[in-house]
Amino acid sequence: MLKRRRATLKDVAESVGVHVSTVSRALNPETRHLITSDIVRKIAAASRALGYIPNTAAYSLRTTRTKIVGVVVPDITNSIFPPIIRGVEDALMEHGYATVLVNTDGGLEREAAMIEALAARGVDGLVIASVHRDDGRIRDLATQGTPVITVNRRMDDPTIPSVTSDEEDGVRRMLTHLAALGHKNICTIAGDQTISTGQRRHDAFMQIAPELGIEPDPANIVFASDFNESSGERCMEELLARGVEFTAVHCSNDRLAIGAISALRRRGLSCPADVSVTGFNDMPMVDRIDPPLTTIRIQQHKVGYVAAELLYEQMRELSSRPVPQHIVLPVDLVVRSSTAPPPAIANKTVRRAVKDRT
Amino acid sequence: MLKRRRATLKDVAESVGVHVSTVSRALNPETRHLITSDIVRKIAAASRALGYIPNTAAYSLRTTRTKIVGVVVPDITNSIFPPIIRGVEDALMEHGYATVLVNTDGGLEREAAMIEALAARGVDGLVIASVHRDDGRIRDLATQGTPVITVNRRMDDPTIPSVTSDEEDGVRRMLTHLAALGHKNICTIAGDQTISTGQRRHDAFMQIAPELGIEPDPANIVFASDFNESSGERCMEELLARGVEFTAVHCSNDRLAIGAISALRRRGLSCPADVSVTGFNDMPMVDRIDPPLTTIRIQQHKVGYVAAELLYEQMRELSSRPVPQHIVLPVDLVVRSSTAPPPAIANKTVRRAVKDRT
Repeated sequence: MLKRRRATLKDVAESVGVHVSTVSRALNPETRHLITSDIVRKIAAASRALGYIPNTAAYSLRTTRTKIVGVVVPDITNSIFPPIIRGVEDALMEHGYATVLVNTDGGLEREAAMIEALAARGVDGLVIASVHRDDGRIRDLATQGTPVITVNRRMDDPTIPSVTSDEEDGVRRMLTHLAALGHKNICTIAGDQTISTGQRRHDAFMQIAPELGIEPDPANIVFASDFNESSGERCMEELLARGVEFTAVHCSNDRLAIGAISALRRRGLSCPADVSVTGFNDMPMVDRIDPPLTTIRIQQHKVGYVAAELLYEQMRELSSRPVPQHIVLPVDLVVRSSTAPPPAIANKTVRRAVKDRT
Repeated sequence: MLKRRRATLKDVAESVGVHVSTVSRALNPETRHLITSDIVRKIAAASRALGYIPNTAAYSLRTTRTKIVGVVVPDITNSIFPPIIRGVEDALMEHGYATVLVNTDGGLEREAAMIEALAARGVDGLVIASVHRDDGRIRDLATQGTPVITVNRRMDDPTIPSVTSDEEDGVRRMLTHLAALGHKNICTIAGDQTISTGQRRHDAFMQIAPELGIEPDPANIVFASDFNESSGERCMEELLARGVEFTAVHCSNDRLAIGAISALRRRGLSCPADVSVTGFNDMPMVDRIDPPLTTIRIQQHKVGYVAAELLYEQMRELSSRPVPQHIVLPVDLVVRSSTAPPPAIANKTVRRAVKDRT
């Protein structure tokens, strides 16, 4: 393949008839305002015509900044993450940063390797959506001065800043909804307890259920190993195998709920006629599944956007706050068709309706 | 925030008692095999203990390579793209490349700006999932010697290599399925004709339908402006408003099909009892929507993976092939519940079944 010589800054400067430093300022979004817009337009046109590509490697060596942020997610094909990633990108792009994305597939060891690979590239900061409650590698990076923020999840260590959703309020709203429908026998499929979302949602369940007159019984609680559909199926089968009586299942996230509904259906049970099932996150498409899922809506894009803004403050050392920030965004209850009154009450209502007519 | 002095290659070399070039080789996946594994382990341990982070900026200046590939998608929150991106990343990671992801939101102008921003970082190559059939900026980049490949879509210009799916075979399988069910009045919601998937699927429809005895009538064809649910809804409303008779709607992708089903439902029509609806792509979750969608399965992860491998060959200039490659991957028909015999036939069958019993 024949390659042409790459056009340089000097070529652009000569073609417009200005000094190279003017071209450099005009092409940098942060200094562009120093140059008149007429000259900026001419320089932009000339650099396009010449195919000039500014070289960030030289900038990186000069400033030890790469203008790249690493974004670490468990798996981009898990549909809760794309809107969060998009929020991160939208915020960082406004500040001239690019994002390098890596998938850890949930393992702490692979996460460490991926983060090492990112650090090796000299990223200016890291947004971590894959974080576990205890995560030594991330603490080390932060201690060594790398700007880090966790998003959607947080570490137990309060020195690592985070942007998360109000898990406790979400669980409270959902349990209140189920209690108002008349459910008393509520099971829960809890998430991975080594992850903050799993642990905080479960802690909230254990604390709030008794306030609503629902006594959590260990026989009604099952812990999922993973936050996915097959784990939800296995947990629902476990609950059915135990033979406990229940009319509703509170799941720690939407994917567990989707799996739970599949397992019910396989056993000839209907959601919500026999059992109500609830999710958490309101991930894309759960409004279109069968039945449309009652869930807690977290602000996926905003969680990512706000995290990126806080990271930017750290990277620019604009943040003079003495303590790391933990921002908790509000959530909403979204009632769809996977919840209904428990069968006994529903039947009573039907009987009453029939009686009224006769 | 107090920052410690960053550990250097020299610090690591001194701590292990080897030459800096040995450390450098040990930390580079491509030269690691030159060093005994015992020394590699010692160097890795020392660099971790010292918090050494190799600097890729110096490598970039030395080699004019960044080991970064730009991945350009219309919108990561469109769930067809995450598995493709994951395939690209999985392949490139094996070769030590990181991926920078940008979203164009479908516009050619924004795409040009995003690609310019990527080029400004000196990416070694580009994987473009957002490409339009005619895209001057991408042709320019390729002409200037930047390794480029398009994925899932392709340009009309045959000089730009691509990895796509067999659109024609997909349409043929789907129309054969509909014809076998007894459908004769088939409408089509075609995709954006400036994008290869939209144009090729529609061309295939126009060519294959007559072979199956289905004469395409302009009154049965509507063109979607975007490949999304709301566009699908609008197109279905348009078809219903025209008052043409049809028993099946062939949609250019899954999102159009989902929108079409919603629009039918709002008009009190049922899918598939009144109208069969088909998609294309088999994107995540379409097996769980109501009704589960009959569609064409493309190999999303593999399309991305193979594209990245071809790009790698270009970047390493391993590819000595005189002409750019266009790889077309096979597709599968996935029959679910959104397709059924047309109402007349279904009713006849029901009548016959009832007659048989009486």
